[in-house]
Amino acid sequence: MYEGPVQDLIDELGKLPGVGPKSAQRIAFHLLSVEPPEIDRLKNALQRVRDGVQFCVVCGTVSDKEHCRICADPRRDRTVICVVEEPKDVQAVERTREFKGRYHVLGGALDPLSGVGPDQLRIRELLARIGNQEDGVDVSEVIIATDPNTEGEATATYLVRMLRDFPGLTVSRLASGLPMGGDLEFADELTLGRALSGRRTL
Amino acid sequence: MYEGPVQDLIDELGKLPGVGPKSAQRIAFHLLSVEPPEIDRLKNALQRVRDGVQFCVVCGTVSDKEHCRICADPRRDRTVICVVEEPKDVQAVERTREFKGRYHVLGGALDPLSGVGPDQLRIRELLARIGNQEDGVDVSEVIIATDPNTEGEATATYLVRMLRDFPGLTVSRLASGLPMGGDLEFADELTLGRALSGRRTL
Repeated sequence: MYEGPVQDLIDELGKLPGVGPKSAQRIAFHLLSVEPPEIDRLKNALQRVRDGVQFCVVCGTVSDKEHCRICADPRRDRTVICVVEEPKDVQAVERTREFKGRYHVLGGALDPLSGVGPDQLRIRELLARIGNQEDGVDVSEVIIATDPNTEGEATATYLVRMLRDFPGLTVSRLASGLPMGGDLEFADELTLGRALSGRRTL
Repeated sequence: MYEGPVQDLIDELGKLPGVGPKSAQRIAFHLLSVEPPEIDRLKNALQRVRDGVQFCVVCGTVSDKEHCRICADPRRDRTVICVVEEPKDVQAVERTREFKGRYHVLGGALDPLSGVGPDQLRIRELLARIGNQEDGVDVSEVIIATDPNTEGEATATYLVRMLRDFPGLTVSRLASGLPMGGDLEFADELTLGRALSGRRTL
């Protein structure tokens, strides 16, 4: 236990995810030794996030304008919507450079035990986007890219049921299978089972 | 790349030691979801550290008063001084519960290549502490507990030379050897060599 402000800072840093007591101590002593403007920049960044971050009115990802960069881009395909849980998932799909459509961020996944039901997610907004033509273009495909875990799968199942009523709409799900560069020997049964049932004819 | 304040916060967090881009993103999205008072507490802790942290006038460790808790404690043995590099080393020795004396924090180790010479460390203060009797008590032993690396060893050698002139003063160095719970097979030659030369008669 240190005395005074240093211990307070260590305590606060230790509450952050992935920062244990040792890292918190290391960061605190680092901040003790840096120039004050460095700390000010971190403080100001915190202040701006605390003051509220804007979310895109269309897809719901973090944005600094009313429409995010992707929704505002006329070159993106308006007929395909990729549904993800979190803004970081948008970045993950973007990094593949394989997807040219637009996104819809749910803001989480169905998790009744934690009190997250369909009303807590941006599902109504998704249905509205598909129902109303977007800029005069019909949405032809919805790719469900929720996480391949219990909550994500439940959300996908729920979405499939909700989207069944739209005529002519294709609903797809990201493929599950062996990760590239992986080893068959070390794959768990569930993943290997999915890879088998989802096998592709060559 | 995110837009606006979130990316700024990720950039600032990514500059902290031990926080990579993935951790920075995780912390930023965590902070997006917490209550504002939580962020305020972190901001205020940063502000207080930025405004300056007090150091104990005797030993030089971080403190919230003029004298730190250890130097102010009359039960601590005033005849023994343990010399360490950093305030965190004080905590490390305290955790052993083996040491009942007081400390002296040098504020680093000799490292001429980085421009750290004897004048940049609190060596003059150490000599003054030993020269002037502390509260009427002579210092009888100085334990040099600098890190067992190049800079720490150089500092220890330098201190031994400086302290040689004090009559009746014992100067000792922390033992080097195999870490407890370690394995002889995996010890490096230097450590094993030190363990051999420092062997104890049973």
